[in-house]
Amino acid sequence: IEEELQSIVKSNGGDSKETFRQNLINTLERKLFYVPSFKIYGGVAGLYDYGPPGCAVKQNVLTYWRQHFVMQENMLEVDCPCVTPEVVLKASGHVEKFTDLMVKDEKTGACYRADHLLKDFCKEKLEKDLSLSAEKAAEFKQVLALLDDFSSEELGAKIKEYGITAPDTKNPLSDPYPFNLMFQTSIGPSGLSSGFMRPETAQGIFVNFKDLYYYNGNKLPFAAAQIGQAFRNEISPRQGLLRVREFTLAEIEHFVDPQDKSHRKFREVADLEFFMFPRELQVSGESAKKMVIGDAGTVNNETLGYFIGRVYLFLTSLGIDKERLRFRQHLANEMAHYAADCWDAEIECSYGWIECVGIADRSAYDLRAHTDKSGVSLVAHEKYAEPKEVEKVVITPVKKELGLAFKGNQKMVVEALEAMDEKEAMDMKANLESKGEVEFNVCTLGKSVTLNDKMVTIKKEKKKEHQRVFTPSVIEPSFGIGRIIYCLYEHSFYTRPSKAGDEQQNVFRFPPLVAPIKCTVFPLVQNQQYEEVAEQIAKSLAGAGISHKIDTTGTSIGKRYARTDELGVPFAITVDSTSSVTIRERDNKQQIRVNVDEVASVIKEVTDGQSTWADVQWRYPAHSSISADE
Amino acid sequence: IEEELQSIVKSNGGDSKETFRQNLINTLERKLFYVPSFKIYGGVAGLYDYGPPGCAVKQNVLTYWRQHFVMQENMLEVDCPCVTPEVVLKASGHVEKFTDLMVKDEKTGACYRADHLLKDFCKEKLEKDLSLSAEKAAEFKQVLALLDDFSSEELGAKIKEYGITAPDTKNPLSDPYPFNLMFQTSIGPSGLSSGFMRPETAQGIFVNFKDLYYYNGNKLPFAAAQIGQAFRNEISPRQGLLRVREFTLAEIEHFVDPQDKSHRKFREVADLEFFMFPRELQVSGESAKKMVIGDAGTVNNETLGYFIGRVYLFLTSLGIDKERLRFRQHLANEMAHYAADCWDAEIECSYGWIECVGIADRSAYDLRAHTDKSGVSLVAHEKYAEPKEVEKVVITPVKKELGLAFKGNQKMVVEALEAMDEKEAMDMKANLESKGEVEFNVCTLGKSVTLNDKMVTIKKEKKKEHQRVFTPSVIEPSFGIGRIIYCLYEHSFYTRPSKAGDEQQNVFRFPPLVAPIKCTVFPLVQNQQYEEVAEQIAKSLAGAGISHKIDTTGTSIGKRYARTDELGVPFAITVDSTSSVTIRERDNKQQIRVNVDEVASVIKEVTDGQSTWADVQWRYPAHSSISADE
Repeated sequence: IEEELQSIVKSNGGDSKETFRQNLINTLERKLFYVPSFKIYGGVAGLYDYGPPGCAVKQNVLTYWRQHFVMQENMLEVDCPCVTPEVVLKASGHVEKFTDLMVKDEKTGACYRADHLLKDFCKEKLEKDLSLSAEKAAEFKQVLALLDDFSSEELGAKIKEYGITAPDTKNPLSDPYPFNLMFQTSIGPSGLSSGFMRPETAQGIFVNFKDLYYYNGNKLPFAAAQIGQAFRNEISPRQGLLRVREFTLAEIEHFVDPQDKSHRKFREVADLEFFMFPRELQVSGESAKKMVIGDAGTVNNETLGYFIGRVYLFLTSLGIDKERLRFRQHLANEMAHYAADCWDAEIECSYGWIECVGIADRSAYDLRAHTDKSGVSLVAHEKYAEPKEVEKVVITPVKKELGLAFKGNQKMVVEALEAMDEKEAMDMKANLESKGEVEFNVCTLGKSVTLNDKMVTIKKEKKKEHQRVFTPSVIEPSFGIGRIIYCLYEHSFYTRPSKAGDEQQNVFRFPPLVAPIKCTVFPLVQNQQYEEVAEQIAKSLAGAGISHKIDTTGTSIGKRYARTDELGVPFAITVDSTSSVTIRERDNKQQIRVNVDEVASVIKEVTDGQSTWADVQWRYPAHSSISADE
Repeated sequence: IEEELQSIVKSNGGDSKETFRQNLINTLERKLFYVPSFKIYGGVAGLYDYGPPGCAVKQNVLTYWRQHFVMQENMLEVDCPCVTPEVVLKASGHVEKFTDLMVKDEKTGACYRADHLLKDFCKEKLEKDLSLSAEKAAEFKQVLALLDDFSSEELGAKIKEYGITAPDTKNPLSDPYPFNLMFQTSIGPSGLSSGFMRPETAQGIFVNFKDLYYYNGNKLPFAAAQIGQAFRNEISPRQGLLRVREFTLAEIEHFVDPQDKSHRKFREVADLEFFMFPRELQVSGESAKKMVIGDAGTVNNETLGYFIGRVYLFLTSLGIDKERLRFRQHLANEMAHYAADCWDAEIECSYGWIECVGIADRSAYDLRAHTDKSGVSLVAHEKYAEPKEVEKVVITPVKKELGLAFKGNQKMVVEALEAMDEKEAMDMKANLESKGEVEFNVCTLGKSVTLNDKMVTIKKEKKKEHQRVFTPSVIEPSFGIGRIIYCLYEHSFYTRPSKAGDEQQNVFRFPPLVAPIKCTVFPLVQNQQYEEVAEQIAKSLAGAGISHKIDTTGTSIGKRYARTDELGVPFAITVDSTSSVTIRERDNKQQIRVNVDEVASVIKEVTDGQSTWADVQWRYPAHSSISADE
């Protein structure tokens, strides 16, 4: 936090950051990596379209995600709808708690996020108010540090105390009140069935736990995964692609026995070394430190550690700079009460450190919540090698009596009786014995019923148990794909002077894995022979499954290289003869000469990752030209 | 239509169709190809989850779609949000016209699709009323044939005439009234900004036309493509995966010069022969006929014909039976008024002929609609080789005067003036000359303003034109991915007796391209040596990018083959020694023996499509065992 504050307060470098970002965003929008959605109608805040190169980058990231996680770990991928009925999101807690605090301009009705206004106010004071006393400065810093934990009342009090008004009109503001961030809709024609656009994909996995566990041969651990759209009706979206109203999530729910969170492949990541930012370092005001994950000891369990390691490998393979990536542990007060431990993969960009992947041990919370709400028990079983003798409360509903008394509701009463825990059952037994009848609340009926001692028998018995029944814990790595992609853009973007030195050229240094197009083909000059060779090369590239583009415009080869660099295309083939051609690498701009019939296989090698550019540079003659490049 | 009626009326084969479908659906649900969404909460009609194999099939279909269409044609892929502001869908006509006619149970308020009730009534009469007169039967057939064209009044009249009541309660029904099928929501916290979940992905492309045209170097023709979720709040979903409330669409918008709809690659598909069902055959009561697309002459233009051919290749490569696939031309009264021609790829399944891909020439309708609504002109330009002399109306708004009169609205007034067509402009000129001022409606302001003759000059001038400006036509192939997949399941599913003959075994004959898992690995018996070999093979398969699964359970090899057949896995490797293993093909059940170190490359060959099973069968020794298979 301290660090963040410093980066806020330091206006040093702030300008160059702004310039960098503006140049980046101009390039991204001009090249249609993304554009504001519905632009011709003035756009909608927080909604963006991916144009052709952005869409290709996204597909490449998702394909690699599937390969790196789903395929390598044999995860069970599912695909559930975005439209979700209310009951599911009531169980998960989203209907009640997925809110931000909002204030309204009391005259115009314009809405603002309460914490944003307070944050902006404190930052502005710290940055611009030169007469600020040390005491006041410390107070504002304190507010910024505690902001995320403020209650509605605390936020309201601070807004009053500082006299903060609506930014656009200076009108007074309402008290803060919670605004639910889900897009609400109605399912079916009656208007009676409320639904929401899902705020995350995870719930679709939880509600399918029983089927997935069965599909996996009733064995733990296993992981399910889902890629899909999620929605969040932000009060006032800002920071471009980082905070949007619709986004692609890729989520993994890894189910484990809570008594054994070891991971059989942990040793494969144990030696990885990267920046970790455990709770203690944050609290003591230190910075993130490079640690070997196997040594760290601060991660709650091996499975969580394994995923942290895998996420590190995933992000750095995409081209995220490992010096600007850290894994930050949640502070105790930051975590949900049920969470055992939680680490965020944070990536540094011009907006600061951005949470891009959350990796949380959510314990048994979600499965229990859906078990309670649905009445379907979402549990796992472990067979004992030998039966164990245990004393158990046995609850035997007398169905005949219950049927007479409750008719169609009998089933619900029986299920509720069988679902009682030991204490509840023994209490009921005592009451039945003393009073002859009890009031019993049946959740699924939404009311209490009266039971007498004919309707159920409850006794303690010694029983042989053949298996343990338990609710699995879930470890959840959750990836914000759009945020990762935006940070990737920042980490990949650079400018270099053109040869003439008169202008800056923009380059994305995407690895071939991510690059939207792997290779371009340029006939050096416009003539039929060269264009035929170019077509022939394009065909062999297509045959090898390599995405490519021909540019037969008469533009100078230097300009065509510059265009290609701005899209992050790693290799450019220039056709300057009918027998051999040159291949130019984007970042070092060196060229080699390769025969026409070999060129597709060379490009395949270097884009597949079988060989590096250095490997092939060593094998083929260098081509140097006083040419057209720049 | 006659054909459809016959298939409805014939109860012959109906039962076996039902049995087939029930067996298929049981298998699909048991193997988690798909399951009803939110099942533990009782489900929501029209929403389904794809489980692991279904999700893999879907990914394979989409990957192949991208390869077959986007990559091979160099289409510009985009990715736009599902949440769409109202203005966009007003322009497209969806707010007004995307409706179904609904009737309500007058007592309970339950909703039904009016046409469904009438259809069910007529079908029931035709199927079950043995005393039906020939005359009445003809009338019901006539109603079924015209159903889709009935107006609200006609539907209501028929429902009254036949005394149709609510199916569940027999209560009287309301008159039919339109129900908009879009899921509505509200964007942002104010509640003032209405939005919808998009009913199709196409609008996201149209609103980006200007940027995409520029991205393509301001050249026509070009195509943009989008894969994504679309939503349709069905009144009463039925027919499983065929009519759902949320689905994946893959859409192409191919923009062409309306004066030149030729396609440079038409000859690549011209020789294809398949079932076509042109308008004339439908009207004259004939059946679809095999035709060579290049000869057909009934398709409006080459581009439309090219896409019909490409769609045929796409569907049959996936495993759609070409004998149960036809391209049906829309009847004149079926098409939107603006459409030039429209063909549906219809696939026959147990529910009848199902529209799975629509291929429409939508002319300039969509781009014009968004130009009108947004005021941004979505047009293309064709440069003339030599400038042409034309007489043109020149409209010159006098910005100074307009600025004084309309201040901030000046820009909108200027744009509206410049957007006038010749006739409007000449009328204004006449009015200004006679009266000195005119009322002028400015759409984007939503009101009229008063203009005087100082504010604009209008005159006819001889001008040299250097280019033609026009609104492109759009040819739209639109794929319902879920429907294609369901039909694929039906066309791929068969049962065969087990060797013992005591039970039926289910098989999906998916081609490797589509199969959710390409290959399974079975150690013949549970021992460490074999399991190590199996692990080694699994690693080499992973290295080759082949999705696979190890099954080390002690189950009999016959049962494991049966399990694998039910998932449509084309190849099974059985480890029965440490040096060589067998590969078994799913459909002919024959086996070959291959060395352990070759096995991954053999599987790659046959799953990539480089070789057929017959090719490799010829190269490797056959393995025959009195073994375990069945």
